[in-house]
Amino acid sequence: MNGPRKVSEQWLRDILQLLYRRRNLTRCDIAELTGLNGGSVSRALGRLLEYGTILKVGCIQVSGGRKREVFNLNGEAGFFIALDLEGRSIRFALCNLLGDIRYRWEQDLQYGEPLEFRALCEGVGRIVGNLDARQLSRVLAAGVSYPGLLDEEGRVTAVNLGWHKFPLAAELRKAVNLPVFLEHDTRTCVLAERWLGRAQRHENALFVIVERGIGLGILMDGRPVEGWRNKAGEIGHWALDPKAPDQCGCGQRGCLEAIASGPSMVRQYVERAGPHERAANLRAADIFEKARRGDPIAAAVLERAARALGLAVSNAVKLLNPQIVIFGGDIIAGEDLMMPLIKEEIRLRALPDLLHGVEVTVSGLGLDIRLKGAASLAFRGALRESSALQKMCGPVLSSEAQASPLVQTL
Amino acid sequence: MNGPRKVSEQWLRDILQLLYRRRNLTRCDIAELTGLNGGSVSRALGRLLEYGTILKVGCIQVSGGRKREVFNLNGEAGFFIALDLEGRSIRFALCNLLGDIRYRWEQDLQYGEPLEFRALCEGVGRIVGNLDARQLSRVLAAGVSYPGLLDEEGRVTAVNLGWHKFPLAAELRKAVNLPVFLEHDTRTCVLAERWLGRAQRHENALFVIVERGIGLGILMDGRPVEGWRNKAGEIGHWALDPKAPDQCGCGQRGCLEAIASGPSMVRQYVERAGPHERAANLRAADIFEKARRGDPIAAAVLERAARALGLAVSNAVKLLNPQIVIFGGDIIAGEDLMMPLIKEEIRLRALPDLLHGVEVTVSGLGLDIRLKGAASLAFRGALRESSALQKMCGPVLSSEAQASPLVQTL
Repeated sequence: MNGPRKVSEQWLRDILQLLYRRRNLTRCDIAELTGLNGGSVSRALGRLLEYGTILKVGCIQVSGGRKREVFNLNGEAGFFIALDLEGRSIRFALCNLLGDIRYRWEQDLQYGEPLEFRALCEGVGRIVGNLDARQLSRVLAAGVSYPGLLDEEGRVTAVNLGWHKFPLAAELRKAVNLPVFLEHDTRTCVLAERWLGRAQRHENALFVIVERGIGLGILMDGRPVEGWRNKAGEIGHWALDPKAPDQCGCGQRGCLEAIASGPSMVRQYVERAGPHERAANLRAADIFEKARRGDPIAAAVLERAARALGLAVSNAVKLLNPQIVIFGGDIIAGEDLMMPLIKEEIRLRALPDLLHGVEVTVSGLGLDIRLKGAASLAFRGALRESSALQKMCGPVLSSEAQASPLVQTL
Repeated sequence: MNGPRKVSEQWLRDILQLLYRRRNLTRCDIAELTGLNGGSVSRALGRLLEYGTILKVGCIQVSGGRKREVFNLNGEAGFFIALDLEGRSIRFALCNLLGDIRYRWEQDLQYGEPLEFRALCEGVGRIVGNLDARQLSRVLAAGVSYPGLLDEEGRVTAVNLGWHKFPLAAELRKAVNLPVFLEHDTRTCVLAERWLGRAQRHENALFVIVERGIGLGILMDGRPVEGWRNKAGEIGHWALDPKAPDQCGCGQRGCLEAIASGPSMVRQYVERAGPHERAANLRAADIFEKARRGDPIAAAVLERAARALGLAVSNAVKLLNPQIVIFGGDIIAGEDLMMPLIKEEIRLRALPDLLHGVEVTVSGLGLDIRLKGAASLAFRGALRESSALQKMCGPVLSSEAQASPLVQTL
């Protein structure tokens, strides 16, 4: 596509993709891992250094060897808008190229009232409001972590937002004039773990999120598995014990979610502890605390939940052969109690050769996990889009060029 | 990479990839589906026609519109060596670009004796022995459907072959001097369905193979899911009913495989029908036949197997959201009895919105399914390899140039 001495867009893409996945690399590392020849790597690195997309961050020297410069992304060379639409509040963040959150805003959701799109735009306005024109010109893309369902036209249906087929992708693209990428929240979690968490070196990972529902984020060969209609990951409705009395919201009995979600643990505790306990006052964390203090009912409820999770995860491991399984959500507060039981159950159920070397752990990314996953999604998308890639690797706009479309709209 | 008027390798690759997936397309279709501009498409099609890689196979005309030429792959423009190492015999085939089997050879496996590599080479020799030098120069790659396990170095461990870490990939590559691609047999089945069977229009498909074992081939976003160590698909060892008496070969009880595989159905029938029935004389097809004649034990055994399969598949559907689920293996002989029960069980268990529009069916590809899948694998691989692509799109060797490496070796 380019004449001699020019830098091919594909080289830039390959190198940035690599630095997105693995930080702090030498010229040799980059040549080896991208498969590009040394000349192409040098020309591309020159261009990326010239425009500040990457930085020299140090050098290494092995005894007797040459000094080798180490390169990394320049965090401030690009920004992503990240939105997390799950839960009782909407979270907004501006993330940089390294996944650091630079601005963050959170807004309560009124229960039962539909979320207005205007409020979403105001939230975006708040997180980009502090940027100067140069920084604004380097806002590359937006990523959204959505709950519920997404159809082929980019329309979201989600109970907690009061949305039925709301054309989020199209509206947001119009409003911010940037490429917009949407992903289900189970998958933004696994993307966040891949970029910044415990799956950084893994191409095949599962993320089990235990909250009101239970979902599975699947990463295979480095890519999130979405399924035919973006509905992959419904492990919560696996009929683990169809003869059990536990009624699930889906109409069936004995679903994993009806046994092991946070609210289901609370329900079981209240059913067995008697009428003096009221479900409205309890959360999963309270059940864990009661168990720590020796409450046998709490201990039995969480053991049942943990074994159900272990059984389901052992089946998912057999089906998908991941290298790591990461748990997140309500379960983190009970890590000390739940994880040994979950691991024991997986060990009991899984085939030894499938389980060998598989890591089972909890997430360390905290409440911002979906925001970071949304930013990761935006980064991956921006690398594919020629316009965003050019922006990332081109000259930063001078401060005269202030009429950024992002500012105009919001 | 090319100067003006040249044809880029990427254009050729894009067009051939498209014609591999979807046959009989017009120039407009090709431009639309590849995203290439009209000029690039015309130049690339010219090159492919010139060297006989594709053919004009007809034309279509819509009332009042222009005549549009229809292009398709020229089957005889390229060949793949396909090997199926599963079962009691080894199958060899030479497939053409359209997936037609041109030569086929089958060789019994001596039970308990390791398969000698020399015998494998002789089998390959037999299927290419009838080719002339021009055809030999268009043998592009080899694909292998293996049972058992493959490690990172391309070494196969398989009980039926008597192999422990046999370096198949390296040895075969040396012997045939062609790119060699290996895939587990569950995944070659799903690749065959994608290329030539019931999943031709689907990017997300599951293939349930019910034989001595039960495995799942997973296709997501058009790619087979392999997992971390090529071990994805072990649905046969899902603990469906851990309290059941059925002892599985893996050491657990109540695995899907211990309830629903062909030999497990036979075992259950013999256990219940009494000592006058001998397992050695029965196959799954006999159980189906007995059920058709009103044998209540046979009917109960197959109902249990079908419901176990339905439950397991409904969980796989929830997890992976495929568009189609295809059953293959022993079950095909009992399609009339098993499939209605399997479908009913899936309908009972799956969430309505996940199940909506999902097709559940049996394979129509017959005994050659894995050979066709191995050829599909070789085709996919050849499109990625520059050397094979050049061979596919270049001039056919004249008959003087007879010293093909393939002939020398075999």
